[in-house]
Amino acid sequence: MAIDDYLRSLRDRDWQRLESGTLRLALVGLGWWTREQAIPAIESAAFCETTVAVSDSQEKAADVVAGTDRLETAITYEEFVAGNATDEYDAVYICTPNARHLPYAVAAADHGKAVLCEKPIEATQQRAEELVTATEDVPLMIAYRMQTDPQVRRLRELIADGAIGDPVVVHGHMGQQLLDVVSGSPDQWRLDPELAGYGATVMDLGIYPLNTARFVLDADPVSVTAQMHSENEAFRDVPDQHAAFTIQFDDGTYAACTASQNAYRSGQLRIVGTEGELRLEPTFLGESPQQLTLRSFDGRTAEIDDGRRDVFGDEMTEEFDYFADRVLREEPLSPDGEHALVDMRTLAAIYEAAETGREISVT
Amino acid sequence: MAIDDYLRSLRDRDWQRLESGTLRLALVGLGWWTREQAIPAIESAAFCETTVAVSDSQEKAADVVAGTDRLETAITYEEFVAGNATDEYDAVYICTPNARHLPYAVAAADHGKAVLCEKPIEATQQRAEELVTATEDVPLMIAYRMQTDPQVRRLRELIADGAIGDPVVVHGHMGQQLLDVVSGSPDQWRLDPELAGYGATVMDLGIYPLNTARFVLDADPVSVTAQMHSENEAFRDVPDQHAAFTIQFDDGTYAACTASQNAYRSGQLRIVGTEGELRLEPTFLGESPQQLTLRSFDGRTAEIDDGRRDVFGDEMTEEFDYFADRVLREEPLSPDGEHALVDMRTLAAIYEAAETGREISVT
Repeated sequence: MAIDDYLRSLRDRDWQRLESGTLRLALVGLGWWTREQAIPAIESAAFCETTVAVSDSQEKAADVVAGTDRLETAITYEEFVAGNATDEYDAVYICTPNARHLPYAVAAADHGKAVLCEKPIEATQQRAEELVTATEDVPLMIAYRMQTDPQVRRLRELIADGAIGDPVVVHGHMGQQLLDVVSGSPDQWRLDPELAGYGATVMDLGIYPLNTARFVLDADPVSVTAQMHSENEAFRDVPDQHAAFTIQFDDGTYAACTASQNAYRSGQLRIVGTEGELRLEPTFLGESPQQLTLRSFDGRTAEIDDGRRDVFGDEMTEEFDYFADRVLREEPLSPDGEHALVDMRTLAAIYEAAETGREISVT
Repeated sequence: MAIDDYLRSLRDRDWQRLESGTLRLALVGLGWWTREQAIPAIESAAFCETTVAVSDSQEKAADVVAGTDRLETAITYEEFVAGNATDEYDAVYICTPNARHLPYAVAAADHGKAVLCEKPIEATQQRAEELVTATEDVPLMIAYRMQTDPQVRRLRELIADGAIGDPVVVHGHMGQQLLDVVSGSPDQWRLDPELAGYGATVMDLGIYPLNTARFVLDADPVSVTAQMHSENEAFRDVPDQHAAFTIQFDDGTYAACTASQNAYRSGQLRIVGTEGELRLEPTFLGESPQQLTLRSFDGRTAEIDDGRRDVFGDEMTEEFDYFADRVLREEPLSPDGEHALVDMRTLAAIYEAAETGREISVT
């Protein structure tokens, strides 16, 4: 496909098959991401609506319901697990701390509901495997967000079509000032290994370059090396205030990645091949314009701004509508649980590599 | 210093003290880099001239002399070592295969001449140490090139002045299609471990992000991890057709680097700090415009093109004039041999890390 065709089809929903229908969602976990990103994104979606809000207290859930047009029912986690209001929703969106994904996914599966679960799938590899097993009779998708970003999908197509020759190396970085982002909010669970899992940074941020590289390369990790450390008091319980890691993929490509929860807000992805390179920047953090740049061996350069100015919102709307499209048509979806288990094995390997000072195979 | 002051002083020779004088250079090794880059760069220099050409045959040296205005004397390596024409030059520029740096540096020191030696300083750590010991009575500088690039010097000043807060991570990449660059030329010595040393790619290209990161951070490596492999027949004798490595520096900063001798021609350097980020791109490969971009926490963005359109030539002219300034004034210079030994220890550690699958300390 020529560059001009990519430009014309930049915002195409290449995945959409559904013509009409509505998937009713229960939102499990009402932190800032659910309130400020997920609810507005679902309001913009064609095939979804939010009908039930689930939180730790009836009051908090009712507050969120009161602040929206569509939401009607507020229940507690206990009531959700007990099966309240199951006739009011078809699927659940789980956006709790990592180590709370498992019980609510299990409950959703028990109620026969489809599950859209935030990344990473769970806090540890073992819990992630339990989650995948427990949900095998319902649709399960992981909310990686970038896989339904239209620019990322075009980037993947460009690579598959040979626009940069054979991929050789990937660079990925994601950083933010976590303590500024979550100041005074319960999101500080990311610094608590009981809730976050192996660490605060590679689990939460490093997973973006890892998973997006997998998606655009259409390749999986074979082995990793890593270095990480924490220095500030707030990060005393986690090993990775700052982290750097390399990944060898099964197509031979290397990724060199960094992540920090104590850095300037910044994200970038670059793929260099034998005959060109692609850069997406800024990315991962919803900044606009998210610019896609192609440089290729014959001197051609293209810089593509797709015009979006609410990148987070657009990515989430695309994600919810994709999920609805697949669930309502009863078709397979991706990224599914098996896909997510590869990330969890890789994340576990990255933390083990840093702790042991050894290259770790991802098996 | 404010951004505007940086813009005004972008091309300043902050290092220059010499008002007049000429350093006469013998060029040892007449490959394409010497002929096409070094000789024109010295012609543009204020304080240098080339007077002697040294090669493996009298014919080849005489050919180069015939093609230039200033050069007058052509001698062989044997004649150079024997001390021919020592009254015609004050210093030598060594641009031979890595494993030939030692004998000609030893000869130059025996003749009492200052030495400007191409990077890496030698093929192995042991030979590098021998070279430094053998030249301890004469000025020795390593031709890293980037350290006299004015934009790189400004980048270093910006970091030292706190423009991005505390540095957190560095990304560096350098890649080229070696087989296209050197097709039919004797430069294929880079694929011969006897001449190149530990490998073809990290030694030749990876050293750019490594050394430039050291320079702009003003920090040294503590430990490294690495992954590398060769797949094409031409790279059968070296381990690193493609490579990825991480470096922890003594200020806590991580660098995530990649290098490939079988990739699209591309180089980039990025430093992310707690309060901003700096990007130099394209870089390392002489492409113009080499753009310096600053983004900082208060939303300030600066993109600086210093107007140079012959980046290789300018970097080399700056490097030769800096060398002359220091040698003629009999002042200490940098990057010196001790500085280069840190790179050699780091390069050896990177190859050991890849071979053993272990994090290796740089000691």
